[in-house]
Amino acid sequence: MSRIAYVNGQYLPHRHASVHIEDRGYQFADGVYEVVPVIAGKFIDEAGHLDRLWRSMSELQITAPMKRHPMQLVMKEVIRQNGIVNGLIYMQITRGVAPRDHPFPSEAEPALVMTAKRISLDKSAQKAEKGVAVITTPDIRWSRCDIKSVSLLPNILAKQEAVEKGAYEAFQFDEDGFVTEGSSTNAWIVSQDGTLITRPTSHSILAGITRASLLELLKQRDIKIELRAFTVEELKSAREVFLTSSSSYVQPVVKVDDRVIGNGEPGSISSELRSVFKAYLEN
Amino acid sequence: MSRIAYVNGQYLPHRHASVHIEDRGYQFADGVYEVVPVIAGKFIDEAGHLDRLWRSMSELQITAPMKRHPMQLVMKEVIRQNGIVNGLIYMQITRGVAPRDHPFPSEAEPALVMTAKRISLDKSAQKAEKGVAVITTPDIRWSRCDIKSVSLLPNILAKQEAVEKGAYEAFQFDEDGFVTEGSSTNAWIVSQDGTLITRPTSHSILAGITRASLLELLKQRDIKIELRAFTVEELKSAREVFLTSSSSYVQPVVKVDDRVIGNGEPGSISSELRSVFKAYLEN
Repeated sequence: MSRIAYVNGQYLPHRHASVHIEDRGYQFADGVYEVVPVIAGKFIDEAGHLDRLWRSMSELQITAPMKRHPMQLVMKEVIRQNGIVNGLIYMQITRGVAPRDHPFPSEAEPALVMTAKRISLDKSAQKAEKGVAVITTPDIRWSRCDIKSVSLLPNILAKQEAVEKGAYEAFQFDEDGFVTEGSSTNAWIVSQDGTLITRPTSHSILAGITRASLLELLKQRDIKIELRAFTVEELKSAREVFLTSSSSYVQPVVKVDDRVIGNGEPGSISSELRSVFKAYLEN
Repeated sequence: MSRIAYVNGQYLPHRHASVHIEDRGYQFADGVYEVVPVIAGKFIDEAGHLDRLWRSMSELQITAPMKRHPMQLVMKEVIRQNGIVNGLIYMQITRGVAPRDHPFPSEAEPALVMTAKRISLDKSAQKAEKGVAVITTPDIRWSRCDIKSVSLLPNILAKQEAVEKGAYEAFQFDEDGFVTEGSSTNAWIVSQDGTLITRPTSHSILAGITRASLLELLKQRDIKIELRAFTVEELKSAREVFLTSSSSYVQPVVKVDDRVIGNGEPGSISSELRSVFKAYLEN
């Protein structure tokens, strides 16, 4: 089955799917996106992802290219045409095509692109069994990381640094030494006294959908949670560390820079939360 | 004469010029650009622009899509095919097309796009005769503004704010209240004692080509120059204010937020420097 991409009203063979060179996404990073997991043919947290997509558009004054319900139909059709059972859908909306000029154009039509791909759940499970390594790096991003924009250059530089150092992810920290988040994930720790700590949402981090769903699931459990920023030092001396994202789910971290976390194996709380989240995904 | 764009080796009708939806410029703002003025058929400060383009690529570890001399030939051909006498050429280089994933892809070929357009020198001269208004706004950009990347979302938001307030440009200021630069221009003041002040280059601003050329031209003149950051307060109480860029040249500023600068007309030093720069352009 060959890959199909949706581009502004057309379903096209993936390799022929293109946008104009003056699409503002290409020239100005003037666009937003979402990645929505598909498990057993169903979208995970579809409402949360669409809410955030609409919020991102609203913050940038980008008009939605279509209403929410028709967009959900396109998402379904993209999944169907690509035969995705387990995978993810990538959706990007930009301000559209206009002669290059910084201010918002008065006449551009917002552009919508969607692609889908398969991913193996086994791969994520294998990583989770062993746990992953992360590095820490200064957060050099702009001040509106709450907007899920395609202005991702600092994120890819952080991720590349992680890869070059043999790590899975880079946790970024602000000027005061507090961890903000990963380059494409949210960061969590379990302190030595068993408290679960993650940074509250603000303009400094993206409001992760997996993060929010996990917090919701945790309400029913007897676990102490603190929504506060933690330092790199707290991170390195934590009892457990893990990260969350729509494609990593709950991923235990066993090493931060040169520091081994706990005994170097996924912590019990991290592993339990992964199971809790897995059960949620499968329902 | 219909517009022609250069896209990865082909000269195409502008409206059919496109890039793949998985070009990393589109999905990650993973690219750099330059805008080079053309006056009387000649490129202005071509060497400076190409030096900066190569530096931007190098900082992001993007391989040049071709060597410098062939790129200059493409630039010439784009100008020729578009019949440009006075105008500018826009050049964008991205890391290329690869399946969406944050780290640098191992196999992507860097992509090169060039377009050209006419601009009227009269329009700029008209603006310069009256002077323009600027607003001030917090600098919310990332920490590597020295790289001329297409990660321009904060810049367009600042420019849009200026336009909505009836101004030509937004001067951004850092957390300590010091002006960094405009959204697509460098900022200059003349203090009450006649000293010309502009911010030194660093990771906080783009090393403007017009800025550098003007500083070079000023070496031959008897004018006191201080390369230092100035505050928003100094900006508003300056004797004169002006901005520089490759498309605005030297542009006098007569209003900052609600504050009229001097007597509300272009200052004598700003106007003189515009003439000096104009003479340089025409030689």
